[in-house]
Amino acid sequence: MRIPGIREEVVEKLRFMFEPNSVAVVGASRDPGKIGYQCLRNLVEGGYGGRIYPINPNADEIMGLKCFPSLSEVPGEVDLALIVVPARIAKSAIEDCVRKGVKAVAMITAGFSEIGKKEEEDEIVRICRENGIPLLGPNIVGISNSWKKCNASFCQSLPYAGRTAFISQSGALAIALIGWTWLYRVGLSSMASIGNKADVDFSELILYFGERDEHTNCIAMYIEGLDAGPEFIEACRRVSPKKPLVALKAGKSERGVAAAASHTGSLAGAPLIYSAAFKQCGVIEVSSLIELFDSALALSLQPPMLGDFPLIITNGGGAGVVATDAAERYGIPISDSPPDLAKSLRKYMPEFGSAKNPVDLTGMGTADKYEGAIREALAHPGVDGLAVLYCHTAITSPMKVAEAIYGPYSELKNNKPIVAAFIGGSECEEAASWLKERGVPAFPSPERAMRALSALRAYGRIRRRFGG
Amino acid sequence: MRIPGIREEVVEKLRFMFEPNSVAVVGASRDPGKIGYQCLRNLVEGGYGGRIYPINPNADEIMGLKCFPSLSEVPGEVDLALIVVPARIAKSAIEDCVRKGVKAVAMITAGFSEIGKKEEEDEIVRICRENGIPLLGPNIVGISNSWKKCNASFCQSLPYAGRTAFISQSGALAIALIGWTWLYRVGLSSMASIGNKADVDFSELILYFGERDEHTNCIAMYIEGLDAGPEFIEACRRVSPKKPLVALKAGKSERGVAAAASHTGSLAGAPLIYSAAFKQCGVIEVSSLIELFDSALALSLQPPMLGDFPLIITNGGGAGVVATDAAERYGIPISDSPPDLAKSLRKYMPEFGSAKNPVDLTGMGTADKYEGAIREALAHPGVDGLAVLYCHTAITSPMKVAEAIYGPYSELKNNKPIVAAFIGGSECEEAASWLKERGVPAFPSPERAMRALSALRAYGRIRRRFGG
Repeated sequence: MRIPGIREEVVEKLRFMFEPNSVAVVGASRDPGKIGYQCLRNLVEGGYGGRIYPINPNADEIMGLKCFPSLSEVPGEVDLALIVVPARIAKSAIEDCVRKGVKAVAMITAGFSEIGKKEEEDEIVRICRENGIPLLGPNIVGISNSWKKCNASFCQSLPYAGRTAFISQSGALAIALIGWTWLYRVGLSSMASIGNKADVDFSELILYFGERDEHTNCIAMYIEGLDAGPEFIEACRRVSPKKPLVALKAGKSERGVAAAASHTGSLAGAPLIYSAAFKQCGVIEVSSLIELFDSALALSLQPPMLGDFPLIITNGGGAGVVATDAAERYGIPISDSPPDLAKSLRKYMPEFGSAKNPVDLTGMGTADKYEGAIREALAHPGVDGLAVLYCHTAITSPMKVAEAIYGPYSELKNNKPIVAAFIGGSECEEAASWLKERGVPAFPSPERAMRALSALRAYGRIRRRFGG
Repeated sequence: MRIPGIREEVVEKLRFMFEPNSVAVVGASRDPGKIGYQCLRNLVEGGYGGRIYPINPNADEIMGLKCFPSLSEVPGEVDLALIVVPARIAKSAIEDCVRKGVKAVAMITAGFSEIGKKEEEDEIVRICRENGIPLLGPNIVGISNSWKKCNASFCQSLPYAGRTAFISQSGALAIALIGWTWLYRVGLSSMASIGNKADVDFSELILYFGERDEHTNCIAMYIEGLDAGPEFIEACRRVSPKKPLVALKAGKSERGVAAAASHTGSLAGAPLIYSAAFKQCGVIEVSSLIELFDSALALSLQPPMLGDFPLIITNGGGAGVVATDAAERYGIPISDSPPDLAKSLRKYMPEFGSAKNPVDLTGMGTADKYEGAIREALAHPGVDGLAVLYCHTAITSPMKVAEAIYGPYSELKNNKPIVAAFIGGSECEEAASWLKERGVPAFPSPERAMRALSALRAYGRIRRRFGG
């Protein structure tokens, strides 16, 4: 069923999907091996504070919660119905949703268009649309919202809480990447598995997270194929001046197109057309899952880089060289420090250091040297952004350098983006996590830090182009 | 001082540098803030089993070790002298080495050609060469050898033990990346910081690790610039049929060339010339530090991929699609499974799975399904290599899948390379570490696994071209 243009009324109702005050699990089960059990457990264990209604005609109680034979018998309102019943009774579950006046439906149940059962899917969509109920899915892993602690999915945990809304056309990846959010401290506001996108599509989700969700600063997408190109482009163009959009288009290679077709049935289409469309509507395109997460981390935490002069500060010449190479690869211009800045930076390094760009504090770069140099750089009107690189040395601990970054950053707050790289062992990992928890994106390698900075620069250029 | 061609006698003597039976720390100090103290402590704490001689005219004893006023007074033989005295007395320290008949010298002391003092450096080189003593440095962080537990450096710890020899033209990176060896379980046999490479250069180190060090399977290099191009090419061409060589050439961008010149004084030179030279002599070139380590991990653990049919096995369609895209990006051909293989793989997946390539076991891919599919793939004559991808699901734990990979791999041992990706949280990290400790390279993302497989394929092609 082709989506008929941008549907503002659907967008508006997505609040019931992502910030529900009550969730019914239609098909809740007592069998721990069943998804109907796992979804209920995940809601409860995630600490969801709204009302939870397990629906199952054959149970009185599951996990200590009173069970209802059907939605109609639930006493209060139901914002979100999470449907996990078998496909053959999905339609009657939807009809039950209509009778109850459910506000939004997320349908985990699989076995529709992805296995050729298009008519059954269309019928369900028709019923939902006639009754003004937005339907996410079918064939999804569910949704989660960190701020409501609402894990309405079969992902075992909520994501690490943060400011990126993640929309994934792959369910398995969505689940797996929840693990990354914890491991790499890339916080999500919401996760939406989009599945067969029979009704709610990228465009409505983008508009919801972009214009109506105050917890979201950045929208990250895993896309295999788009059916509703014009709506996608319109939604992105509307949102991109307000919040950054970053996308991994999978199925870009010749063979990858075939793999995507086999996976989600996507007409993955000519890769260049996607890239052109992304450019046209202000979507930052990346080419790997790690780049997607690194970029989202930076974009959700930091302001865009509005000019073209980033400064690199390092304590290791080699790290500076690889960062410079990466900068060129990612299109970030690197030029000499302005003479007055170079002069003031000289105070923070021995004679054999370098005040050019990269600024090399050398192995003698202690935390106070870092702090001084960072402060000068942030205060200088010619500097548009900062990449601070640290190679683990015995002279200064990673955490001291993290503090030396956080100090001036939190005091000055002058709208210049900052990224960091901590190259070393577990102490470096800890320092990077500490910084990320405080709003500074930090990475294990100089190249990844520069890639993240390039996303901030790309967004700066989008803002200049589209306003915002 | 230009190196006069390949010097076999120097190569031979490098065993005293990397596997010394005795180490003198010339300039050992009682002051914990001094490098002369740290180097001694690192040798002792690293568990070095040979004899350690601190040399310091003003101390009787350091860390419980008897101290000698000069090398000449050391009773036994001295294989390696690690020199940490100030630059102004470095020459007399070298003369003392000559008098003592020291077998090899590693000179941490800085303050030579890197700050314009080329004559002083040349003089030291001249003395060493006249007396047949190989000199590493000056201006290095030292050397370490995992198998001898010899940490003759100011790196705080030995590397995680393994089979890659790492030669670094950046000292700070060498120290920092020792942290990576532990964090990412990328084992090193030796680490050599090459510094000003006034005497011993890449060529001799390559020949030593390539032809004379049985603990080394793979040589990884961080290169900013080469002064002795012909020797480098000759050494690589000799070694590449026997052991894989992988290099990150830093300072490839226009601006990076300038940064490298400022860092190591390297004439970083035309980047394309380096790439052409690497190709010519069988060096696998990578473009980031992470790629360098990922490739080294794979090349040091796994056999090369000798044909052109790798099979991808996944439990998530999306992971398969991004892996396929990455394969194309890295030049790995992906084609359909042979019909007989496809037929036998069908046993391990539900009807909606895919036996094409990527092989999608779907979210229902339990450990026994993985094991069955992996066994079929490894046993099939048409399969030249294997990438196993796992998205964390509730259905199978990462460790079970790791075991499902290790089982058939360790039983069949049929010279086909295998790499894995575990996408998820800390349990995935643990499973990947477990596999790496058992010889299977495992990564946190599909793209990184495919990049590693591409290095194994590149080495397969080098072997076909150069023999070996």
